[in-house]
Amino acid sequence: MSNPSLLILAGDGIGPEVMAEVRKVIAWFDAHGTSFDVTEDLVGGAAYDVHGTPLADETLAKALAADAVLLGAVGGPKYDVLDFSVKPERGLLKLRKELDLYANLRPAQCFDALADFSSLKREVVAGLDIMIVRELTSGVYFGEPRGIFTEGNERVGINTHRYTESEIARAARAAFDLARQRGSRVCSMEKANVMEAGILWREVAQKIRDEEYPDITLSHMYADNGAMQLVRAPKQFDVILTDNLFGDILSDAAAMLTGSLGMLPSASLGATGPNGYPRAMYEPVHGSAPDIAGQGKANPIACILSFSMALRYSFNLGDQADKLEAAVEKVLADGLRTADLLGPAGGTAISTSQMGDAIVAAL
Amino acid sequence: MSNPSLLILAGDGIGPEVMAEVRKVIAWFDAHGTSFDVTEDLVGGAAYDVHGTPLADETLAKALAADAVLLGAVGGPKYDVLDFSVKPERGLLKLRKELDLYANLRPAQCFDALADFSSLKREVVAGLDIMIVRELTSGVYFGEPRGIFTEGNERVGINTHRYTESEIARAARAAFDLARQRGSRVCSMEKANVMEAGILWREVAQKIRDEEYPDITLSHMYADNGAMQLVRAPKQFDVILTDNLFGDILSDAAAMLTGSLGMLPSASLGATGPNGYPRAMYEPVHGSAPDIAGQGKANPIACILSFSMALRYSFNLGDQADKLEAAVEKVLADGLRTADLLGPAGGTAISTSQMGDAIVAAL
Ligand SMILES: CC(C)[C@H](C(=O)O)[C@@H](O)C(=O)O
Ligand SMILES: CC(C)[C@H](C(=O)O)[C@@H](O)C(=O)O
Repeated sequence: MSNPSLLILAGDGIGPEVMAEVRKVIAWFDAHGTSFDVTEDLVGGAAYDVHGTPLADETLAKALAADAVLLGAVGGPKYDVLDFSVKPERGLLKLRKELDLYANLRPAQCFDALADFSSLKREVVAGLDIMIVRELTSGVYFGEPRGIFTEGNERVGINTHRYTESEIARAARAAFDLARQRGSRVCSMEKANVMEAGILWREVAQKIRDEEYPDITLSHMYADNGAMQLVRAPKQFDVILTDNLFGDILSDAAAMLTGSLGMLPSASLGATGPNGYPRAMYEPVHGSAPDIAGQGKANPIACILSFSMALRYSFNLGDQADKLEAAVEKVLADGLRTADLLGPAGGTAISTSQMGDAIVAAL
Repeated sequence: MSNPSLLILAGDGIGPEVMAEVRKVIAWFDAHGTSFDVTEDLVGGAAYDVHGTPLADETLAKALAADAVLLGAVGGPKYDVLDFSVKPERGLLKLRKELDLYANLRPAQCFDALADFSSLKREVVAGLDIMIVRELTSGVYFGEPRGIFTEGNERVGINTHRYTESEIARAARAAFDLARQRGSRVCSMEKANVMEAGILWREVAQKIRDEEYPDITLSHMYADNGAMQLVRAPKQFDVILTDNLFGDILSDAAAMLTGSLGMLPSASLGATGPNGYPRAMYEPVHGSAPDIAGQGKANPIACILSFSMALRYSFNLGDQADKLEAAVEKVLADGLRTADLLGPAGGTAISTSQMGDAIVAAL
């Protein structure tokens, strides 16, 4: 039987650096009985530089054939001048859309050893463990009509927010399934008081809950109140279900609450792919951080934990994922810290590659 | 010369209670040489109960004739079952639209005496003083087409996000004008990496800055990063300029950072009205808080400070506004606290109406 296949798209900025550490982890697993066929390709600005497009057709074909994609990060100031259609972000959005990765899982977890890094009080965030499920392939990100048009003697910018019932339903199911493995509570967020699309969202989420997940407690909250509650008392939440645009903003706010942005992974899942695995892409929540790229300062943990999510969600290798997460915790408990994790409490300053080595050693 | 006119729309929940305290303040100013012609009417659920609509035509006519509107709050669980078209919120949105109140000013200020109420660390928020300028009459709140339609064999919810150049320009000017009275820095937030309407927003804001406000420092930030930065280090901002939907979410997050939601006023301003004053509506940032309505627990300060904004922004009575704000500060410094402001640090617990009386006494 052949190994499952991984496509690595390291991308821009610190992407290649943090991905180099993931490769060490993959090599360790390979030497210990869990092997993947790994290929690598370009995405984002790195792809534009070579192909004049942030996602070449061959790369997309590889992604469609792979059992999981690991992505580093895309974007950088160098590409700010590019036309909208070839900006690095378009490569990422095209991958999401073409792989139909409709459920974006963003855990916001506060690591105990790092709770003091949060701008929030320790008691507000210590032990925080939220899972945000963001719909990722529809809404205002992809709705038509869109563009800048001329109307009378001025221009108008238009984007269309749209959700079908089935799009809402499948995102809701993803959230309910996850809640079953956690605290069985889902809070769905929209602006049903202002947007008809929010009314439909609320109605469909409730219907799926009532018909298919009677064991799950579902509540509804307006997204503006959601932002407030995340700041006020984030531990009230278990799973948050929301749309593409609200999810973008709320998950970033939630990530920042933890104080450990460099630690947070994400998974984007779709329907079953060619070999029985779900279509999936894993990536750190942090961006390409061009300001520190190439300096050995980046924290590879978010990207390594993204690989751990791949083990768990794509390949059903929960034990291996647990093992990898325990190794990360051990290294933190030992006081090893990349630059972003060095605070008043001290710790031993190490580089990106030393962090990767330490995690492999802990394995 | 006749007095300027104020229309009071107390609305639902705690709206009438907090507004009763504002009336005491207005009475004090009346006795001391600053008089208004005050009329009162219904809005939101209170209007629906009587007229079957959250904003009667006669009420709208009064609002259009008034020199400023003071609004309490709208909404409550009793009205959740109503059809979208007659929900309390529609009354508020109709007022904004018909008065063309395109610039919503939301200060997020952390009161020193209350800094410990924030879920954020004191040093992160103490002295915080941000002004958010939210565009209030366009974007996805009002764009067409909108609604729930049938497509094939399922329904689809659609809302349209749209901004014309002139809509962006006038909101930007409002932000730049305010920045001139403050720190001269504006940060504009959108999702130009994902939405064409965001590209136009960024371009127009920059053009107005370059052509009309060369003295202002303008930066641009993606709204998701904006949410992160508000959580991480809110004091980096002076004025934030953003659209209707992002503004709804970001301003609520910013308000919650301060820990003093019951203290925060807002102003919504439009073009010049019939008597030379700008069209204007003033309201607390907090909602109708149905859970504590009618119990004398509500904090009237946000509504009283909304009246103070009216003095300042509608009637050019900056000295009187200063005086009122000083009275509020005095009362807080004396340790007087409504229920929402009572924490570990103690203070003297007082009711809604005692707080109003104390502020009048301090005047
Ligand atoms: C890079 C950008 C297109 C992307 C988004 O807006 O979805 C990012 O912010 C994210 O959340 O993954
Ligand atoms: C009540 C609601 C319609 C309103 C909005 O979404 O604008 C409120 O959240 C606000 O921010 O004033």
